[in-house]
Order: sequence, then structure tokens, then C-alpha cells
Amino acid sequence: MFRLIPQELVFFDLFGRQADVAHRGAKELLALLEEFDHLPERAKRMKDIEHEGDTVTHEVIEKLNRTFITPIDREDIHELACRLDDIADLMDTAVNRIVLYKVTAPIEPAKALARCLVHATAVILEMLPAMRNMKNADRVRTLCRDVHTQENEGDRIEQAALAALFEGGHDPLYVLKWKNIIEELESATDRCEDVANVIEGIVLKNV
Amino acid sequence: MFRLIPQELVFFDLFGRQADVAHRGAKELLALLEEFDHLPERAKRMKDIEHEGDTVTHEVIEKLNRTFITPIDREDIHELACRLDDIADLMDTAVNRIVLYKVTAPIEPAKALARCLVHATAVILEMLPAMRNMKNADRVRTLCRDVHTQENEGDRIEQAALAALFEGGHDPLYVLKWKNIIEELESATDRCEDVANVIEGIVLKNV
Amino acid sequence: MFRLIPQELVFFDLFGRQADVAHRGAKELLALLEEFDHLPERAKRMKDIEHEGDTVTHEVIEKLNRTFITPIDREDIHELACRLDDIADLMDTAVNRIVLYKVTAPIEPAKALARCLVHATAVILEMLPAMRNMKNADRVRTLCRDVHTQENEGDRIEQAALAALFEGGHDPLYVLKWKNIIEELESATDRCEDVANVIEGIVLKNV
Repeated sequence: MFRLIPQELVFFDLFGRQADVAHRGAKELLALLEEFDHLPERAKRMKDIEHEGDTVTHEVIEKLNRTFITPIDREDIHELACRLDDIADLMDTAVNRIVLYKVTAPIEPAKALARCLVHATAVILEMLPAMRNMKNADRVRTLCRDVHTQENEGDRIEQAALAALFEGGHDPLYVLKWKNIIEELESATDRCEDVANVIEGIVLKNV
Repeated sequence: MFRLIPQELVFFDLFGRQADVAHRGAKELLALLEEFDHLPERAKRMKDIEHEGDTVTHEVIEKLNRTFITPIDREDIHELACRLDDIADLMDTAVNRIVLYKVTAPIEPAKALARCLVHATAVILEMLPAMRNMKNADRVRTLCRDVHTQENEGDRIEQAALAALFEGGHDPLYVLKWKNIIEELESATDRCEDVANVIEGIVLKNV
Repeated sequence: MFRLIPQELVFFDLFGRQADVAHRGAKELLALLEEFDHLPERAKRMKDIEHEGDTVTHEVIEKLNRTFITPIDREDIHELACRLDDIADLMDTAVNRIVLYKVTAPIEPAKALARCLVHATAVILEMLPAMRNMKNADRVRTLCRDVHTQENEGDRIEQAALAALFEGGHDPLYVLKWKNIIEELESATDRCEDVANVIEGIVLKNV
């Protein structure tokens, strides 16, 4: 797809590691919301995953700054690395808020958003190795559409969740806490879509 | 202004269509807030406008990815398309929140912000065809200043609205709902200003 | 470090002026929170500083649009100017909210965040002249790490503040007001970190 030379393949390795971080983060998030036990330990594991993501992102930026000819546009590499990094960051913030706010029980839409994130990050994880070969362009585009579907679903879940929170006769602070958490989770699905958008653009320019 | 060749003029056609989408969206928004009836039908029309905007934006990005020489910097085209798209998105989100939150009556600052948006998008709609000819550079700059004025006005309205909401002895959930809606509307005026900023930069580089 | 020619040195002068604006803003903010008197006068001074920042930022963008060869990448200059500008903007918004919301007394974490901002902007102010000479690369990197430390500290303060706000048996509107102010202040520390990140990238590319 790109005339890749060995020293440039490293970007794909790094993106793959970022996607793996995002996917493991999504699974940790879902497990936390489904089990809702050992919160401090689970939050600690999420934070470790997020730090691992920071390290890989930093490697991409350093590598990018030291590489003169890149297989794909510099802006696209930078954007891809930052948006992949954001996914784990936002999930970590959501988990953090759950702990900080001393939430006593998860709500269904939070679990549904976590399931969207597990799905979307699994698709992204599959998409990145496929990008190495231009023969896979159609497959990559199909996977991108799957990510868009998850983002739409995330949007729908957020809207239903906000309607339910405001209607349910809840304590205002309860509403404020969950509105905050739900919005962080929905933003993470937006960042998954951003990743798919950057990848679609790269495919279009290089096929 | 730019040495335009026919295949590149299409960007201006597309920006014009995006501005038209934004302006029609602003008028729908204002009508909804002023009449405050048939909300589901009005929200549906707004969503249709927003989808139309997505389609045009997608066309710009595709066209950009397939065009090697563009009349204006690639980054500027991308930025302009995305910020124009954001205007309708944010107005659609605001309408959505109004429906979801089962708001029972509009508040005056929301109408005032909608009027700012109708004004600012009308100016943007006038600005884009003017950009095709460098003789209009002064006219374009004057129009940009008009958009900045609307953004300052939007800022002022938001501040007064927040002060009134927090002072009015209102139910906290009422405050939370309207704070959210007002902030989305004010963000839409910020995106109008972003559009004017990109256009000012393009004019400066090309005169 | 960069083969600077006189006409390009002006960018460093302008960045230095932006950093000075940010640092003076941070000191105003801290004084306001510590003294908590003459709020309208103090808010007015903050707004003046923010406007001064807008003027310098506008000068950078104009200069950039008129300069064909720049000592550092155009994107980096644009990013640096915008992120430096954001710092004063966010502090001004926070002060504005304090006045608008008729806050009657400051809270400790707001002061702690203001102290982080005074520290981080002082480091940025020191960093910019150091960038003029490549012999200072190590010094610049050390200063960047100091900014990162302040951002981490800002994050920690925000989290503790949110936990305390939600736990303290406070009125929901009180929580909503301070959550808003604390988040604006924490965003300002994020923008300081963005500045350090852009600078680290520039150093890496030019050493």
C-alpha cells in the first residue's frame, strides 16, 4: 500500500501497540462496570494501561520527529497517534470519576457504552495490520464503517441515558456525576471514529 | 485571488453548500425556539439538515484526498470544512438536548443566541462566493469582522444567561439542562468565528 | 539551534510576549483567589491581560501568514501561539465565572491550581529565550519536565477537588459552579503542558 521500507514499518508496530492498549483498556472498563468490585485495584490497572499508552504515544512522536521520510503523511501519523492515545485517556478519566464520585452501582447505559468501546477497539486492532497491504483497502473500509456504527450507537446510548437521568426523579448530584461519566465514555467512542476517519483518509490517498 | 482552475472551483461550491446548511440550520433553530411547537418534527428537520452537512463535508474530504494541487492550502481546506460542519452539529446537539430534557419553555438567551447564529451564518454564506475573486478581499475582511462581533455578542449572552440561571432560585436540574444547551449554542458561535479566522488567513496569504 | 535570520527572531519575541501575558494572568488569578476583594477591578485587569494576549496572538498569525521561510515549522509556530493564547483565555473564563456565579469565598484547590499556573507559566517564560540557542537544548528539556510535573499536580488537585465537592453535603448549584471553575483552571494547566510538548518537539527536530 505504501512503499514501506523497514525503518518505517515501525510506525505500524507502534500503532498496533496503541490499539492493543485501547482494546485492553476497554475490556478493563467493561469488567469494572459488570463486576463492580475491587474498584481501587481495577482503577489501578486502568491507570497502568493508560500510562503504557502514554509511553507508546511518546515513542511515535519521537520517532516521527526523527524520521524525514514517512510512509504516510506526517500529519496523519501525528493525528492517528494522538487519537489512539485519547481513547485510553478518556476511559481512564471515566473510571477515575467512578471511584472519585463514590458511585455505589453502575448504570446500564455505562455498560452499554463500554461494550461499544470493546467492539470498536477490537475493530481498530484488526484494522491496523490490514493497512500494511494495499490489497486490504476494501476490508479496511468495511472495518471503518463498523467503527462508525459503534459511534452512532454510542451517541444513541448517551442521549437515552441523559433523558433517563433527568427524568428519573434523581438527586441532582447523582445526575451531575453520571452525566459527567457518560459524556467521557461517549467521547471515547468519538475518538474511535476519529481514528477510523484518519485511516479512511490514508487509504484513499494511498490506494 | 487564487489561480483557480475549473476542477478546483468545486471546493468553493462545496463550502458554499456547507454554509447554506449552517444557515438553514440556524433558521430552523430560531424558529423552534420562537414557536416552540411540533418539537419532534422540527428536531427531525434539524437532524436532516445536519446529515446533509455530513454528506457535503465528506465530499470535501474525499475531494481533498484525491486532489494534488489545491487552490488554497490543504490544511486550510480541511479546517474550513470541519469548522463549517461543526456549526450544524452543535446546533443539532442543542435541539436534541431541548427535546431529550423535555424542556417546557424556551428561555430568552437561547433565542438571542439563535439570532446570533442566523446572523453569523448569513454573513459566512455571503463571504464564501466573495472569496472567489481577490478584488473582494476588503469586503471579505469586513464580513469577517461582523462574524467576530456576533461571537463577542454570543459570549456576552452566555455569561448573562449563566448568571441568571444560577441566581434565579431555580431547580438544580433546570440549571444543569439549560447550562448544557446554552453552552452548545455558544460553541456554535465560536465555530462561526473559527470559520472567519481561517478565511482571514486565506485572504492574507493570497492577496 | 535554528539558523535564525533577524526577521525570524521576531517569532521568539512574540512567543516571549505571549508567555509574559500568561504569567501575569496567572499571578492576577492567584492574587484574586488569595485576597478575594475588589473582584470587579481584578476581573477587569484579567480581561485586559487576556485582550493583550489576543493582540499578540493575532500578530503571530499575521506574521506567519506573511513569512515564507520560518525558522521552525509553520504548524509548530501556529500551535505554539494558539496554546499560549489559550492559557490566558481559560484563566480569564475562570475569573469570569467566579464573578458571574457570585461566589462568596474561594476554595483551597482553586488557589492550589492558581499556584500551579504561576509556576508553570514562569517556567514557560524562562524556556522561550533559552530556545534561541541550541546549546540550551538540555536546559529546555529539563524545564519541559517541570511543566509536566505541574500538569500532573493540576490533575491530582482537580480530582481531589471534585471528590470533596461531591462528598461535602453541598448545595448542588454550589457543586456545579465550582466544578465548572475547577475544570477551567485544570484545562489551563493542560494548555501549559501542550506548550511544553510543542517545544519539546521543536527541540528534537532542530538539535
